[in-house]
Amino acid sequence: MGRNRTVGIGMDYSPMSKSAVRWAIDNLVEEGDRIVLIHVQSSKSDHPQKKLWEATGSPLIPLEEFKEINLSKLYGINPDPEVLSLLDTASKTKKVKVVSKIYWGDPREKLCNAVDELKLDSLVVGSRGLGAIKRVLLGSVSNYVVTNASCPVTVVKG
Amino acid sequence: MGRNRTVGIGMDYSPMSKSAVRWAIDNLVEEGDRIVLIHVQSSKSDHPQKKLWEATGSPLIPLEEFKEINLSKLYGINPDPEVLSLLDTASKTKKVKVVSKIYWGDPREKLCNAVDELKLDSLVVGSRGLGAIKRVLLGSVSNYVVTNASCPVTVVKG
Repeated sequence: MGRNRTVGIGMDYSPMSKSAVRWAIDNLVEEGDRIVLIHVQSSKSDHPQKKLWEATGSPLIPLEEFKEINLSKLYGINPDPEVLSLLDTASKTKKVKVVSKIYWGDPREKLCNAVDELKLDSLVVGSRGLGAIKRVLLGSVSNYVVTNASCPVTVVKG
Repeated sequence: MGRNRTVGIGMDYSPMSKSAVRWAIDNLVEEGDRIVLIHVQSSKSDHPQKKLWEATGSPLIPLEEFKEINLSKLYGINPDPEVLSLLDTASKTKKVKVVSKIYWGDPREKLCNAVDELKLDSLVVGSRGLGAIKRVLLGSVSNYVVTNASCPVTVVKG
């Protein structure tokens, strides 16, 4: 134990991505690991921090700060209390460090880039298998990262 | 600890599927869990046990038996000593139970069926991203199970 792995979780606050957080906490992370909650915002979004960080993605935001700053105003993100609570509990009971990062652009590319930039040992994403149209439009995110990310990828259903 | 999960691993003795075993042992399984090593043989293969078990898949074969019986003759499988050694060590040091099962048919369908039949909590498969032709022909196995299997699926690279 204590291998200090870094586990990325793709987060868009959909039910599937919440399942991804739950699965990662229940099955994968252990004491000493670090969770990076990865958000990818549309490149069309227009928020103050985007101008500063669009090229590189935001700095890593510690969970404590993530819970307090006005994310909606700065980044256009509305964190789900349930997700924050799950992460809060994990950071306390499992002694994992939780940070968050925000990218702008295509979720498929940005998630794959994040694997390399953040040197992720594992990436966990939700599957978006709900409905034929959603699957065609969005299901490809999980299939893309499974094929292209340079680390093991776990796809979790709702 | 002690959640008694069942973790399936797709196994064809390719480098990628060996990486899948390594990842599962190093990152996912813990004391009390059960590993099911899942083999899917071609429906064209012609071995004595196939006639008996083609419809349902073979019975679950404990690791000890799997190491000893003439698998090549009975099932057309040539287990890799490296994989057997990894599993042997895991069964001793992590106290996980290791069993094996053989199916005949389309790996995509059989792996998804196995998730339901064996009530898998997780499925781990190798990615076959080597070379464009292989990817087109075989990469779809991991993409298919990611999309269709009813449990979380982890895809591991070599």
